[in-house]
Amino acid sequence: MGLLVVGSLALDTVYTPFDKVEDALGGSATYISLAASYFSGPVQMVGVVGTDFPKEYIELLMEHKIDIGGLQTIDGGKTFRWGGKYHYDLNVRDTLFTELNVFEEFDPIIPEDFRKSKYVCLGNIDPTLQLKVLDQLTDPQFIVCDTMNYWIEGKKDELLNLLKQVHVLVINDSEARLLANEPNLIKASKIITDMGPHTLIIKKGEHGAMLFTDGTIFSAPAYPMEMIFDPTGAGDSFAGGFTGYLYKTRDLSPNNLKCAVIYGSSMASFCVEKFSTKGLEDLSYLQVHDRYREFLNISRIDET
Amino acid sequence: MGLLVVGSLALDTVYTPFDKVEDALGGSATYISLAASYFSGPVQMVGVVGTDFPKEYIELLMEHKIDIGGLQTIDGGKTFRWGGKYHYDLNVRDTLFTELNVFEEFDPIIPEDFRKSKYVCLGNIDPTLQLKVLDQLTDPQFIVCDTMNYWIEGKKDELLNLLKQVHVLVINDSEARLLANEPNLIKASKIITDMGPHTLIIKKGEHGAMLFTDGTIFSAPAYPMEMIFDPTGAGDSFAGGFTGYLYKTRDLSPNNLKCAVIYGSSMASFCVEKFSTKGLEDLSYLQVHDRYREFLNISRIDET
Repeated sequence: MGLLVVGSLALDTVYTPFDKVEDALGGSATYISLAASYFSGPVQMVGVVGTDFPKEYIELLMEHKIDIGGLQTIDGGKTFRWGGKYHYDLNVRDTLFTELNVFEEFDPIIPEDFRKSKYVCLGNIDPTLQLKVLDQLTDPQFIVCDTMNYWIEGKKDELLNLLKQVHVLVINDSEARLLANEPNLIKASKIITDMGPHTLIIKKGEHGAMLFTDGTIFSAPAYPMEMIFDPTGAGDSFAGGFTGYLYKTRDLSPNNLKCAVIYGSSMASFCVEKFSTKGLEDLSYLQVHDRYREFLNISRIDET
Repeated sequence: MGLLVVGSLALDTVYTPFDKVEDALGGSATYISLAASYFSGPVQMVGVVGTDFPKEYIELLMEHKIDIGGLQTIDGGKTFRWGGKYHYDLNVRDTLFTELNVFEEFDPIIPEDFRKSKYVCLGNIDPTLQLKVLDQLTDPQFIVCDTMNYWIEGKKDELLNLLKQVHVLVINDSEARLLANEPNLIKASKIITDMGPHTLIIKKGEHGAMLFTDGTIFSAPAYPMEMIFDPTGAGDSFAGGFTGYLYKTRDLSPNNLKCAVIYGSSMASFCVEKFSTKGLEDLSYLQVHDRYREFLNISRIDET
């Protein structure tokens, strides 16, 4: 049994103040799987692409020992494409275009040998599809899930249904406020964990992340970065690092969830150092571990 | 010798979504002194009020063993008044009015027996006045200073002159970006410490605070508050707690500066729990220490 990852694979066109790329590898399943691949195999990926999806991207996934047995290729179809432009401070982005293409008709079919997965990471896709994935699993034990404003506003009922089955929800601060309809994040966290997930992670970009679990709150710092080249995929890399570490250690204690938040933050920090998935392609586990130690040091006080 | 605090004393009118107060005790010197008073005496306050300044506010300061030997009362003058209104999420505020009154002609005269102070906290006032204070001191060893956008934009030269003499600058994130003319806070921190201060603290409100000292970065979490009644004075309370703790411990090592950031954050969290200075009036040192422990726990991971 592996770590099941379901989400999008995309060809991204990204403009930042520093550079631009066209048809670069992107998508939530891609970033999650690559980030998770540094912890423990196998990562079992489910998604859909068109026949235009470059062979080298497939090879890259396979080099990371990602099992693409659940990757559907639609004959003659075009891969999902997204275009975005980041502004000077990189906190604001405009979506230039979204072409769903083969994603429009995506029916996530979980291969027989993936269905027994106990650890699952559901990337940000339509909650109806996320529910369909869970329906096919025989005994999921730990389900991590991402979503976004678009689904919170447009598919609230389906999302609330999904949340009843989910163990960890990973969203950003504006999504948390919207989902809970409450501006205070501490109050919002209680409202959201009452919806189902025993654990909530709120990502705050340059301000780090917060973990709410088992009545306790953990605050993780952000990595002090002088240069962010491309924020695309940071949230997915976080989810991949978080879930990958927990899958590897098989320890779901509150303290280990905190460690997993730091590993997730570490993978996100690698992600944004380069364009597209480049920052996640050639790391060693030692580099990942060193980044984790650096994160711990940022909030460490030696007590006397 | 005591801890010298120079800044404003004000009568504040504050509107929040929850309540309002008129002519409540306020001002940077007030919040700094009250917060610092929980650590070690004596706090020596320098400021100015009019004859309309209520006697009970003077008594409150004296109850906290604050030495008001440097407090000028201008005969027939009116005390500095400020009015502000906070919006629903409490992160945005409008200034309703600013009446400088006796503050307009304020000439900070440091009493003879305050001039040997080695620890100094300069509240947010005109940098020309902050410089005037330093000119009167015989041997200041540790100068903590606050400022604001208004002075960064309007008195840049005076501020830069001041910064050459200052050891710690405490400002918020937007002020840091403005002062350094650099949106990235990590880069901004280097630009600002090159201006003079060996240590920079950037306050980020609900996202905590960052300390830059001696080439290292420390990230302090925010206290998870479900209810903020009145954010007025939080930054000054931070500066008071930070400086007060260092004055008490006389240890300026990087690790103790980190502890001081957490004590500063603790005092700020008490401040915003009640209107005006109420949150700083009746604490015990045990309460302060407990809050400090709570802060440490928020970012603690037990390492295995």
